[in-house]
Amino acid sequence: MSTNSQTILEAAMAAHKSRNFFSQYPESPKAYPEDGMEKGLAAFQALLNTDYNPNNFTDHISMYGAEVSPYLQTGIGVNYPIYDVPTLISRAKSAKISWSEMSVAARADVLIKTLDALKEKFFEIAYATMHTTGQSFMMSFQASGPHANDRALEVISMGYEELTRFSSEVEWTKSMGKFDLVLKKNFKAIPKGISLVIGCSTFPTWNTVPGLYASLITGNPVIVKPHPKAVLPIAIYISEIQRIFIENGIDPFTVQLAADTMDSPVTKVLAENKNVKLIDYTGNSPFGNYIESLNKTCFTEKSGINSVILDSANDINAVAQNLAFSVSLYSGQMCTAPQNIYIAETGIETPSGIVSFDEFVEIFATAVKNLALHPKSGPGTLGAIQNEETIKRVKNAKMNGATLILDSIAIANPEFENARTLSPAVLTTYSESEAVFMNEYFGPIVFVVKTKSFEESLELTANSAAEHGAITCLAYCIHEARANFIEETMNNTFTPVSFNFTGAAFVNQHAAFSDFHVTGGNPAGNASFTSPEFITKRFVWVGNRFMS
Amino acid sequence: MSTNSQTILEAAMAAHKSRNFFSQYPESPKAYPEDGMEKGLAAFQALLNTDYNPNNFTDHISMYGAEVSPYLQTGIGVNYPIYDVPTLISRAKSAKISWSEMSVAARADVLIKTLDALKEKFFEIAYATMHTTGQSFMMSFQASGPHANDRALEVISMGYEELTRFSSEVEWTKSMGKFDLVLKKNFKAIPKGISLVIGCSTFPTWNTVPGLYASLITGNPVIVKPHPKAVLPIAIYISEIQRIFIENGIDPFTVQLAADTMDSPVTKVLAENKNVKLIDYTGNSPFGNYIESLNKTCFTEKSGINSVILDSANDINAVAQNLAFSVSLYSGQMCTAPQNIYIAETGIETPSGIVSFDEFVEIFATAVKNLALHPKSGPGTLGAIQNEETIKRVKNAKMNGATLILDSIAIANPEFENARTLSPAVLTTYSESEAVFMNEYFGPIVFVVKTKSFEESLELTANSAAEHGAITCLAYCIHEARANFIEETMNNTFTPVSFNFTGAAFVNQHAAFSDFHVTGGNPAGNASFTSPEFITKRFVWVGNRFMS
Repeated sequence: MSTNSQTILEAAMAAHKSRNFFSQYPESPKAYPEDGMEKGLAAFQALLNTDYNPNNFTDHISMYGAEVSPYLQTGIGVNYPIYDVPTLISRAKSAKISWSEMSVAARADVLIKTLDALKEKFFEIAYATMHTTGQSFMMSFQASGPHANDRALEVISMGYEELTRFSSEVEWTKSMGKFDLVLKKNFKAIPKGISLVIGCSTFPTWNTVPGLYASLITGNPVIVKPHPKAVLPIAIYISEIQRIFIENGIDPFTVQLAADTMDSPVTKVLAENKNVKLIDYTGNSPFGNYIESLNKTCFTEKSGINSVILDSANDINAVAQNLAFSVSLYSGQMCTAPQNIYIAETGIETPSGIVSFDEFVEIFATAVKNLALHPKSGPGTLGAIQNEETIKRVKNAKMNGATLILDSIAIANPEFENARTLSPAVLTTYSESEAVFMNEYFGPIVFVVKTKSFEESLELTANSAAEHGAITCLAYCIHEARANFIEETMNNTFTPVSFNFTGAAFVNQHAAFSDFHVTGGNPAGNASFTSPEFITKRFVWVGNRFMS
Repeated sequence: MSTNSQTILEAAMAAHKSRNFFSQYPESPKAYPEDGMEKGLAAFQALLNTDYNPNNFTDHISMYGAEVSPYLQTGIGVNYPIYDVPTLISRAKSAKISWSEMSVAARADVLIKTLDALKEKFFEIAYATMHTTGQSFMMSFQASGPHANDRALEVISMGYEELTRFSSEVEWTKSMGKFDLVLKKNFKAIPKGISLVIGCSTFPTWNTVPGLYASLITGNPVIVKPHPKAVLPIAIYISEIQRIFIENGIDPFTVQLAADTMDSPVTKVLAENKNVKLIDYTGNSPFGNYIESLNKTCFTEKSGINSVILDSANDINAVAQNLAFSVSLYSGQMCTAPQNIYIAETGIETPSGIVSFDEFVEIFATAVKNLALHPKSGPGTLGAIQNEETIKRVKNAKMNGATLILDSIAIANPEFENARTLSPAVLTTYSESEAVFMNEYFGPIVFVVKTKSFEESLELTANSAAEHGAITCLAYCIHEARANFIEETMNNTFTPVSFNFTGAAFVNQHAAFSDFHVTGGNPAGNASFTSPEFITKRFVWVGNRFMS
């Protein structure tokens, strides 16, 4: 392994052990060359209305693209090679032979090289992410570039650790009294087979690269099936991996992009192919449940309902501002975004007295509105909405059983006049109206729910996580005993709790090397970035014994 | 943790990492007090025809027992308390609270104390195992006592390592340029819930304690459902754990024995109970497939067909003797016992020339017969057969498509005149007759299969493992390239290979801390003693974050 890779790998291993802050790839654009943004934009623009095939692969059956920029409301015109499934599978099978025979150190070395090469593409990938997902530029840069790379490095380092934790060879010596029985043994981590990673439309690299690199470090070839509305970011990412593989004499089809067409989707065909042994999936629950039903090794991140318990706080305005940001960020399209805010009818305790339910709703709605209408922060926080269904949902947010307090506002973006940007709709309802708020409303819709008591708030939050899944839970509580009770109750539904977040701490953000993203313990998904199982389920330990 | 426990734990962790020979509990009866055997026999005899309830638990609905000694052909008359399922579940739920809150170090400490206490029961458990399973005294002693304890210690040490591999708390500090964002975080391994461990009739402790201790070290309460024909060994084992728990102020119902009756089996009721989150199972494949279909976290060891590839050897007599022992040990009732021996029609290469198929069959059948008829080694190796179905199967071993070379012989046991002891039936057949030999014949039945070539032998072995499952594969091959090809091909069906075993090395024996028993990669089971997954699937990592 190169000294550079070794140094990075060791730092990453120490980081996931300590779980303190660590980032190999700084999240600030300012940490990268000054002309990066300009060059990245130019590189992105040069791709518009072209056929994307930078490594000049052949044998595709057609070229196709269907991406529409949520900022421009026009197609970006990029076409991707479409391969038939037998081609994808046979290339993966062939690539597996040499890839699985490489040592884990050699695999780690070249995979870290791909991450280093990807640094040069962060700005280009950021623009590609912005104009496919609708994320703001800053989120696009951070999530699709440095944060994705850090998550990738995290799985490489965990994979390296897992595959080297046992001796690979031993001379096993057992005293039999009069003589020693000696057996030579070896222990091998045998990769399970072809890995399929199914991308989503909102986080096309961040949600894809953990599965991608986890399968690669454990010796499995990978086919990435992107969402047809968000191909370009991961296409750039993968072509860069392939380029580095070619440079290092490795079969580039060890990783393949399997773009498909709206008319002829290929996900199920790939998922059901008998050679595909591993599936990573991010997306809606019905399809996730189908993936889980296939009886393959799978890693799913599905939908859920994230809750906030608002019991007591030191500074109610700081709470309202923090919550306003968390529900507005990327228009509530993050899997970590809160949807339901539970407050007891007795109100919120603060050092300066009780804040009533209605008072808080007003402070909160004002904070949401002010953020949305702030000329700079508004569009930069909200981003834009890609999916027509999400638009419809928020426009129809008036509903029986809930009161619309703040309607969604169409926000003008000074840079992009056609940008489709909507602020969150804020509704209030009662704990009796579970039929209304106990559904996932993906996008910028927030319910503030009046409950009978703290206990009911917690019960609803726990039941919601157990039945519908939850990736996050945010609690505001300044009473130690109650806070402990929240922590214990929610942890028993396998949901992490963030307490009293104000200022720069947001529940939406899960950091690589520290936060387990999705626990795998409730219906929001069966896997976690990045618990040990995310690695160990991708291979099988097999030991052989030899008579000396 | 006590110094004694700490020392044992550290030795165990070093052992499973190095995978060299390690045993905390010596397998030789001679390592234990001289009067152990006599006292153990007396203790066992004192239990006959009694109600077994040494910790004086109450609230059972009846007492019941149905065990028959394969050596005596009489019932042993031991009755066990039968509890209704709601009692078992509510006791487990209640015990979970304090058990899951104990630190992993405190759990490891008391669990190691239970193993140390069990040492005093090894002889008693040995007699109980002998007179329920039909194992010989020596196998009963080793498998149910020291070997089971070593496997238990292995999972305790792996669990301890896994649960302490990440910091449990961290002050996470991220520089935000002008200020630091500081979050306090904790990371908790939350146990999944009640664990059900379903025992088998042949290895009532060895196959049960790994799942039992793996669930315990990770904080889950356990209900053990023994096979109604092999309760006593695990009943003694569990009552000893409960006694130590009581001594240490721990709820004894953290581990419960759920004996059931032949008329009113309770396994499915327990397995389907919504509070049961983890299931360990050893037994036949149809029931194992049912367990796997329940969509719970499960660990199965099912049936399979173990193969031998006999290509070439240095000493054909040593091979025949090794194989004769492996197929005879406990009448072929070990999950690791070979069933099909593949030999190419061109014969077996040896330094002194080719040994033909027919010549080998004769040498092998003679070795099997001589071992069986040896006055001391015969009964001591074969043990006795408990199950009527196994008796029928071997008595009907004459079948179309195969030639009976050596019929099963009823062996007299000088100690027990009614012992039901049968030597293996040896049959020959051809590779064309897959319908005959590609089925599991649990018990003393061996097929020697004439194939077209080495390549066909390997192909049949690999297909057999992939389709029917395999826990072991034994290969005799003195050509390096061929041996490598066997290793690679079989490892890709997730089957371990043992090469050229003669003398004191037997394919049947998988050693704790070194050999992964069952890989989890082929239909013989979905789990392994003891890969990391055997631990990590029993809990969920959850992290909480606190604003400083």
